[in-house]
Amino acid sequence: MVFSSALIENAVNEFAKLPGIGKKTALRLVLHLLKQETVQVQQFGEAIARMRQQIRFCKVCHNVSDEEICGICSNHSRQRQVVCLVESIRDVMAIENTQQFNGLYHVLGGIISPIDGIGPEQLNIQSLVERVKHQGVEEVIMALSPTIEGDTTIYFLSKKLKEYPVKITTIARGIAFGGELEYADEMTLARSISNRLPLDSYVKP
Amino acid sequence: MVFSSALIENAVNEFAKLPGIGKKTALRLVLHLLKQETVQVQQFGEAIARMRQQIRFCKVCHNVSDEEICGICSNHSRQRQVVCLVESIRDVMAIENTQQFNGLYHVLGGIISPIDGIGPEQLNIQSLVERVKHQGVEEVIMALSPTIEGDTTIYFLSKKLKEYPVKITTIARGIAFGGELEYADEMTLARSISNRLPLDSYVKP
Repeated sequence: MVFSSALIENAVNEFAKLPGIGKKTALRLVLHLLKQETVQVQQFGEAIARMRQQIRFCKVCHNVSDEEICGICSNHSRQRQVVCLVESIRDVMAIENTQQFNGLYHVLGGIISPIDGIGPEQLNIQSLVERVKHQGVEEVIMALSPTIEGDTTIYFLSKKLKEYPVKITTIARGIAFGGELEYADEMTLARSISNRLPLDSYVKP
Repeated sequence: MVFSSALIENAVNEFAKLPGIGKKTALRLVLHLLKQETVQVQQFGEAIARMRQQIRFCKVCHNVSDEEICGICSNHSRQRQVVCLVESIRDVMAIENTQQFNGLYHVLGGIISPIDGIGPEQLNIQSLVERVKHQGVEEVIMALSPTIEGDTTIYFLSKKLKEYPVKITTIARGIAFGGELEYADEMTLARSISNRLPLDSYVKP
């Protein structure tokens, strides 16, 4: 692409570094911003830079936070004995969006995956053990993706936590609401039958 | 969406203002930037803000420029008597990408469109007339989109320029290279026959 302005070329190249944004889309975004007020574009640039610069990670649960301790960990109306273990910040948001969980979280920062070179020492496992040991955690809910890596991580952690008096649970696997039975994979279908529930525990969404 | 950080919420909202980017994509981009180095993200934010703040529009042709006069207008190896009239900056880039045109440009900044409330007074028409009048322009190529608005604009401008000794041409309309004859619309096909060319003017792309 030929640009008649180095300023534009630079901005396009920066946008094109983002995932899923190619040169053409980047150019479209830059030309859009060119039509906006200078103040607004400045606000955009500053919001992004400030976000990265000032963001902190909660000392307790490793979730993103504006303070030293995040809003969830410092909220005293939440159940402090139940900790939901998740892979990433995004999973915290997904669970918070359901508005059904009232405990705390622990963000692992990934899952054990030898292929990607991620071992237990790169993850926030030691701090989880400390929480279980010293902070009266009664239940750890393993809310990891149902993949081989997820299951490996669950197995590793359950061994690590065995010596402490803590209940370990996993989120339910089964047929998703709206999902069609005939298209479910065999593994899911088999597990959903072996883990069947009494009818009165069946709650409509 | 529930955000545990106002910094992130702010950044997501700013991204979601861009065309074609919804809240989910915005979140994905923000979480991506969160994983990058602070310096890199700062560079991103600054490149965007600086682009909008420092960009100028060429005093002669209204193209975007880093200087008072753009690189095309100040390039003395280009043919100064031929001016290609286009609707927007993007069209300049498209034509420059072909590397086939060696004249100058004039960016109209839109086309006449009463439905959108765009009349001749909002466009860079007066400065075009001045260029034709005082700067020895011998040919104006109307490179506007073949729409009703485009044709209206061409008609309006050709009347405006009639009193000056300038040749007015339009870019060729016809069947695109790689286009299939049977799928071309009637108007295009009809025009391509009535404007047929002698074989020796047929140049392979």
